[in-house]
Amino acid sequence: MADEITETSQTVAAGQLKAFIERVERLEEEKQTISDDIKDVYAEMKGTGFDTKAVRTIIRLRKKDQAERQEEEAILDLYKAALGME
Amino acid sequence: MADEITETSQTVAAGQLKAFIERVERLEEEKQTISDDIKDVYAEMKGTGFDTKAVRTIIRLRKKDQAERQEEEAILDLYKAALGME
Amino acid sequence: MADEITETSQTVAAGQLKAFIERVERLEEEKQTISDDIKDVYAEMKGTGFDTKAVRTIIRLRKKDQAERQEEEAILDLYKAALGME
Amino acid sequence: MADEITETSQTVAAGQLKAFIERVERLEEEKQTISDDIKDVYAEMKGTGFDTKAVRTIIRLRKKDQAERQEEEAILDLYKAALGME
Repeated sequence: MADEITETSQTVAAGQLKAFIERVERLEEEKQTISDDIKDVYAEMKGTGFDTKAVRTIIRLRKKDQAERQEEEAILDLYKAALGME
Repeated sequence: MADEITETSQTVAAGQLKAFIERVERLEEEKQTISDDIKDVYAEMKGTGFDTKAVRTIIRLRKKDQAERQEEEAILDLYKAALGME
Repeated sequence: MADEITETSQTVAAGQLKAFIERVERLEEEKQTISDDIKDVYAEMKGTGFDTKAVRTIIRLRKKDQAERQEEEAILDLYKAALGME
Repeated sequence: MADEITETSQTVAAGQLKAFIERVERLEEEKQTISDDIKDVYAEMKGTGFDTKAVRTIIRLRKKDQAERQEEEAILDLYKAALGME
């Protein structure tokens, strides 16, 4: 078959391989576009005067539910107190 | 203003902050969906019998132009020969 | 020279290349040993009942000076308040 | 006990916590020193004219045994041929 390449007793369906690769490449391109969009939003935020480092922390915290977050903060405060960190 | 919160002499436009955060969260969700899609394509590839590790290498190599790739491979082959790696 | 390998008009000092590579490999091995030691300390900590996630946060915070850390926490608290996160 | 701090019904052995943290910090410092040493070796290599990117690939390849490496290269060559990459 024209679409097959044989080497060391293995055969590769070249057309199928190429189709898979192109699907991944298209998805990776879309992903890159979104990553660039996220970077743009942070740049805009920074331009408006927000502290983007704090915003990133907030976004990370919002992924947890309130009880989980509060418990983590309680333990952290306990350790800070034990170490004299104010 | 109802939308502003003041503390330690700083004021935050709460509505604007929330809007920025929600834009980032929406984009991160889209990005996650695409990452999952990519994972699915690799799973499908693997199911069809392709070596996904080699495919990942191929995709990485395809990002370089041919001359660049060939030069890199020539240097690598040179070093391998110097070290007796066959 | 026995130590030189020539290919595509390039010459490689094989002995020197090998010496460099072995130096890096030795250092990477030492680094791995230390990474394993760190993992062991965390395992011991966990076994003693400490919350290792909080300890990791504490270690990260201790790298900053007190003023920097307090300012970051003030901004974070401000944003949390703006978003109604308690 | 002077060494214990109680908060929200939890008690922390402050001295033990501090000792664990300082052990981790010392190990992380050692690890950083080794990372810097590795960087220095690469800088020296580069100064001598070696292609450090190729050397990094070589070091990665040397971690695999010869049979494994040769099989991976055979599959990669097969895929490259299927895609017309020379």
